[in-house]
Amino acid sequence: MAEPLRIALAGLGTVGAGVIRLIETNARLISARAGRDIVITAVSARDRTKDRGVDLAPYAWEDDMTALAKRDDVDVVVELVGGSDGPALALARSALDAGKALVTANKAMIAHHGIALAEMAEAKEAALKFEAAVAGGIPVVKGLREGTSANALERIYGILNGTCNYILSTMEDTGADFGEVLADAQRLGYAEADPTFDIEGIDAAHKLAILAAIGFGARIDFESVRTTGITRVKAADIAQAEALGFVIRLIAMTDVEEDANGAPQLLQRVRPCLVSKDHPLASVDGPTNAVVAEGNFSGRLLFQGAGAGDGPTASAVVADIIDIARDEVGAPFSIPVAQLVAMAPHEPGHRMERTYIRFTVADRPGVLAEITAAMRDAGVSIESLIQKGRADEGDEVLVAMVTHEGPERCIREALDLLDGSESLTAPPLVLPLLRD
Amino acid sequence: MAEPLRIALAGLGTVGAGVIRLIETNARLISARAGRDIVITAVSARDRTKDRGVDLAPYAWEDDMTALAKRDDVDVVVELVGGSDGPALALARSALDAGKALVTANKAMIAHHGIALAEMAEAKEAALKFEAAVAGGIPVVKGLREGTSANALERIYGILNGTCNYILSTMEDTGADFGEVLADAQRLGYAEADPTFDIEGIDAAHKLAILAAIGFGARIDFESVRTTGITRVKAADIAQAEALGFVIRLIAMTDVEEDANGAPQLLQRVRPCLVSKDHPLASVDGPTNAVVAEGNFSGRLLFQGAGAGDGPTASAVVADIIDIARDEVGAPFSIPVAQLVAMAPHEPGHRMERTYIRFTVADRPGVLAEITAAMRDAGVSIESLIQKGRADEGDEVLVAMVTHEGPERCIREALDLLDGSESLTAPPLVLPLLRD
Repeated sequence: MAEPLRIALAGLGTVGAGVIRLIETNARLISARAGRDIVITAVSARDRTKDRGVDLAPYAWEDDMTALAKRDDVDVVVELVGGSDGPALALARSALDAGKALVTANKAMIAHHGIALAEMAEAKEAALKFEAAVAGGIPVVKGLREGTSANALERIYGILNGTCNYILSTMEDTGADFGEVLADAQRLGYAEADPTFDIEGIDAAHKLAILAAIGFGARIDFESVRTTGITRVKAADIAQAEALGFVIRLIAMTDVEEDANGAPQLLQRVRPCLVSKDHPLASVDGPTNAVVAEGNFSGRLLFQGAGAGDGPTASAVVADIIDIARDEVGAPFSIPVAQLVAMAPHEPGHRMERTYIRFTVADRPGVLAEITAAMRDAGVSIESLIQKGRADEGDEVLVAMVTHEGPERCIREALDLLDGSESLTAPPLVLPLLRD
Repeated sequence: MAEPLRIALAGLGTVGAGVIRLIETNARLISARAGRDIVITAVSARDRTKDRGVDLAPYAWEDDMTALAKRDDVDVVVELVGGSDGPALALARSALDAGKALVTANKAMIAHHGIALAEMAEAKEAALKFEAAVAGGIPVVKGLREGTSANALERIYGILNGTCNYILSTMEDTGADFGEVLADAQRLGYAEADPTFDIEGIDAAHKLAILAAIGFGARIDFESVRTTGITRVKAADIAQAEALGFVIRLIAMTDVEEDANGAPQLLQRVRPCLVSKDHPLASVDGPTNAVVAEGNFSGRLLFQGAGAGDGPTASAVVADIIDIARDEVGAPFSIPVAQLVAMAPHEPGHRMERTYIRFTVADRPGVLAEITAAMRDAGVSIESLIQKGRADEGDEVLVAMVTHEGPERCIREALDLLDGSESLTAPPLVLPLLRD
């Protein structure tokens, strides 16, 4: 058997402790599959004394985590610190600069600095792997980089944030409203104390930008992801969607369209969508993640599993380490960095969509006439419309509609026409229907 | 860029033609991802003149397909001939013997001769890849070999035969009986003229034996797969399952249990099961395939997609070729052949299961008493029971029950007690409930 592969671990939160536990628990089968032993030699974290449920005594300790990158007894640095910049980025740079392999679960860092890090990795012929950065334990980075490698991909989309999916599917099951379910999710550990990154779709946007690069050969462009969170989805929207045969899910979606000159334009979007109950994503409940890739030969492929948690994330981290031990490592984004194309962001106004629009309206005559006139004037064709009267004094009056397929910009025009109207008591909520 | 990787293609049916079409259509992106061009140099099939919708003129032709293995201008032999033995096996042996990489979609050949072929491949340091042999376009061989490589797997199971799934889900949608739907499926090309391999579960058993080897490090043991087909499932069973909250799917399942001495025993089973409508496999309809792997750290992972067809199968074949071009190739069954363990087949009699049993009975007094007495005497506890009276003269009278969880062997004992009874007009149908 070959020499052991020596690992340094930076960051000993739940995932870091999970990686130690995994490597200890499954040591024998990991060695068999990797063709060599995988041993942790050194670790680093903020607090040496904290009880993490794992014994750190066998491993050298470094107070300064960048020192891990300089140790002679380390082949692979595993970065589990988090944060797009700061200590995580410093460590990543030191590791690659020293020619060591880098494994990370840090979606924010890859979304912001993945290209620069891949360039360093290439220059040093060092491995850069980040399976755990996207969709936790689901091998979807590998799935896109290798599983669908023979295909031109038409679309990549999915459920990339477990917190949002837990909240939306719980709202669906219980009829409770957003704030209530968020509070429960925080209590149960499915949502952070500050849930902004999750519920505003930023976490999903990080992951989507990474998938877009791998799937479409685009230079990562996180800044151009158009992101809408789930905070404005009401229980009434979910009930209305249900009545129409849909569920609501936060969908991250990317595809490429050519402009008039044949240059590729990259669409990257995170937004709550109505998903037909017949679609495989509609049955993805709780904190589960799922990614769909549609290839020109493979057809639709679905990868589903736990999107977070110490076990699943550790599973992805160690799978990367085993790939490195097996010397099955290639370009982090499937093709060499120099060949990644800087694609312009796509302006989707001409895209055809069916759309759900919910208005919160004043309870007075003429409101429906005003809304439907604006739709008519903007060329939006209404497929179905329902006005939900107020059950109790003080309830809001809602008007919900689904449009026929039409260009996205017509919806915006209709809403512009209604802007400032005294009939509307809150900004309308616009949710696209996920195309099958 | 490195030298082109040169491919020889044996077998030019729909999949072979699909591989040619894929390599032509996606040539540019394949070269980018593979890091080198992938070119077909030579082909072979039975009939040179047949119109396959692709131009064979650019490729050298060999009448004798084993000659492909001897050509100097070939690095990878792609075997798409089919059949567990005969020309396919001869070609596979010649290719590996000549030190060339072998890519195959041939599940029967791998299920019967995979170990011997992997030994040859190892001895010659040649690649042996067979992603397309299991679940068509779904990268599940890679998913298990690499995606879940850090995990001890607890169970691997799924829907591995598209024909059966098409038949069962169509019976569910239409209420039609087995024979009728099979005839339709044959007309639509979802079932072969001789459907035995599919509907008797043999095709799924081939695939299961391969997955068991990769997932559990077992030497392939196709002969020990216990296989029950779907031919005895009636529309009435599907209706009854539906009323109880289940669908019926042909489930291939494998796991490992230790015997009293700690020796691993391999359970491999293909049989129609009742699947709870809440389970992700329940929404897998039509000819789709899906595989679930449950790891001790990853939790439940689901891989879903097209299980057959020229496009999806070609996608898997070419993904293997790209892996070879990238030099990302390792042990075909995840660990070296010498380390694969010859596991005894598992005797599952003590396993706890809930079971659906349907009796076809004579319409006369005392039948229910006789059946329920046999259950009681064998220690089987009945959870629910329904007797469906005959609607029309000549209809069969059915008694269907679901048992509480209990050892499998008790069910067998109960049926033994009823064996030969004049109350039963046909052998009972026994379907386990898939454990969640």
